[in-house]
Amino acid sequence: MKVSIERGTLLKAVSQAQSVVERRNTIPILANVLIEAADDKAQFRATDLDIEVVDQAPAQVERSGATTVNAVTLHEIVRKLPDGALVTLTEEPGSGRLTVEAGRSNFQLATLPREDFPVMPASDYAANFSAKSDVLRRLFDKSKFAISTEETRYYLNGVYMHVAEGEGGQTLRCVATDGHRLARIDADLPQGAETMPGVIVPRKTVGELRKLLDDDDTPIAVSVSETKVRFATEDITLTSKVIDGTFPDYSRVIPSGNTRKMEVDAKEFASAVDRVATVSSERSRAVKMQLDEDRLILSVNAPDSGAAEEELGVAYGDDKLEIGFNAKYLLEIASQVDRENAVFLFNSAGDPTLMREGNDTSAIYVVMPMRV
Amino acid sequence: MKVSIERGTLLKAVSQAQSVVERRNTIPILANVLIEAADDKAQFRATDLDIEVVDQAPAQVERSGATTVNAVTLHEIVRKLPDGALVTLTEEPGSGRLTVEAGRSNFQLATLPREDFPVMPASDYAANFSAKSDVLRRLFDKSKFAISTEETRYYLNGVYMHVAEGEGGQTLRCVATDGHRLARIDADLPQGAETMPGVIVPRKTVGELRKLLDDDDTPIAVSVSETKVRFATEDITLTSKVIDGTFPDYSRVIPSGNTRKMEVDAKEFASAVDRVATVSSERSRAVKMQLDEDRLILSVNAPDSGAAEEELGVAYGDDKLEIGFNAKYLLEIASQVDRENAVFLFNSAGDPTLMREGNDTSAIYVVMPMRV
Repeated sequence: MKVSIERGTLLKAVSQAQSVVERRNTIPILANVLIEAADDKAQFRATDLDIEVVDQAPAQVERSGATTVNAVTLHEIVRKLPDGALVTLTEEPGSGRLTVEAGRSNFQLATLPREDFPVMPASDYAANFSAKSDVLRRLFDKSKFAISTEETRYYLNGVYMHVAEGEGGQTLRCVATDGHRLARIDADLPQGAETMPGVIVPRKTVGELRKLLDDDDTPIAVSVSETKVRFATEDITLTSKVIDGTFPDYSRVIPSGNTRKMEVDAKEFASAVDRVATVSSERSRAVKMQLDEDRLILSVNAPDSGAAEEELGVAYGDDKLEIGFNAKYLLEIASQVDRENAVFLFNSAGDPTLMREGNDTSAIYVVMPMRV
Repeated sequence: MKVSIERGTLLKAVSQAQSVVERRNTIPILANVLIEAADDKAQFRATDLDIEVVDQAPAQVERSGATTVNAVTLHEIVRKLPDGALVTLTEEPGSGRLTVEAGRSNFQLATLPREDFPVMPASDYAANFSAKSDVLRRLFDKSKFAISTEETRYYLNGVYMHVAEGEGGQTLRCVATDGHRLARIDADLPQGAETMPGVIVPRKTVGELRKLLDDDDTPIAVSVSETKVRFATEDITLTSKVIDGTFPDYSRVIPSGNTRKMEVDAKEFASAVDRVATVSSERSRAVKMQLDEDRLILSVNAPDSGAAEEELGVAYGDDKLEIGFNAKYLLEIASQVDRENAVFLFNSAGDPTLMREGNDTSAIYVVMPMRV
């Protein structure tokens, strides 16, 4: 194999690959990236056996071939090379070494045979559709904070992507919950997604996917089967197993009879919650909300260290209400609001509370209260 | 006590105080900052019993007084308040609470009596002098990387500041070493410093001092005794115990007969060292330098992962030389060079090597070789 690639192009391709590789590997080949050069392009493939990423870059291929080297070392070298350099990767058959050359720099990296590299078998997908980058970004960015980290509830360790009946017909929906709070985000159902089975996309995959979604207008090719999901741009293909479990029936958790409505500037609200939470100890960060006619008092009482109180002007016309929440949960849902006021819908101090952005029901959040 | 301070001013004063406070304290009062309000100013004092910082800010004092509250909590609250807010601190005598008010925010913080706060006793200083901020910054910034972290050699856990005989007469000198490398930085001796005893300024003090030195032209009042050192700007006074030990006779370590001279672009050199070090394992990051007529080859050989080689154009006219160094040490001394080329002076592969910036002998570095 002998192939030359511009340093910036190579860096981008190797970056995505090395981030999939697990830092602590007992199987040596899993620390490596598989490089395949042929037909004016080079492919970089990395896997942790659950996720596979394939990154493709234009290249000057002098001699086609394939080999594997340590992904992190290759990435570090390329990152440290000067911008604009032309990097040449050469492997003499049987040498067990990949030569990386650029200018007066020369590196020899130990290789492992390409035959040992576990390539994910191809699958049949039940649905193939195209979604805009910014649509997918919104679906996952606004839901991922609610993913559970409890390993025993493995079926909550991801975002449940599925087709649902929304108010205006079928939608592409992402849901995540950890039992304390829930996020439900809807988008228009793309053509071809109707037959998609519901899948739980693991947390790590959500993180890797995010790197594909930086450009707003890029169309992303999505493929879904019962066991796998694939996201692809022109250059990068990310394939992942989905979590083998049943996502709970979340619709029962979403309150429908909450009528006490409070509207508040989301930024002001988040800052105030953040401030009052300062005085409380890490363990029980409970914030009390006291609602009265157009007025909200946020307070924290921490016997050891002190107390805090903030008053905010809000739109509220219902009966007085006192309700407590975990400060972190309140902050996280308030920071999802990016365009409008946050609208809270309460029932009683013991019932789950609903939050949405203005009157937009395509992104709703549920948070459980706590006793204060 | 009742005192009002502009939020930005208060934040600056409290920032310096809370950074001195140790995060894990067994003595509760040491987590607190002592606030004293009188005569149109407020003072904020914090200590870890070795270092004391006193920060003074203009304030509207309605009722003078003093109390102590948790430094980190106060800092967090002030940091989160909106810019431009006027913050009022009030303590009703005997209440055991400090009220922090700003706009519609109200905080109550638990206090501890000011009498319990350990104020560092005043000292007589053997020397008092004034040094420009940028002069002190250079002395400490260029030497601190060589401070030892070995606690058993406690007398190396700081920067040795003393008066020395330089080539052009007496100088103010800072030296640090960990036995593997050494930095010796000189500055013109300020008037009044002649009588200064040599002191070992502890690592933490060097870090805290750095925050006082951001403005180039600020004059810093320095006072030194056998046991203490004090640095003061108009607003901030930093007093620290010095390390009770004898700094070794470093002059014997500095080679005087090194005649083989290599001159190299410091940035290019550092980048090349950084790149070749990528292939080696963390433990033995040895870099080999091979010198020949105007040519330097840097190489690393790591049997497990591979090898790396870089060629650099240098100015060198002496015999061929092969010498090895710890990559981290080479990188650290090369990154001290900020104006000119790095000049290396070698003797043999087994002897300490000297480095300086161009022909400037006011900052020299010594690094021990390692076998490669």
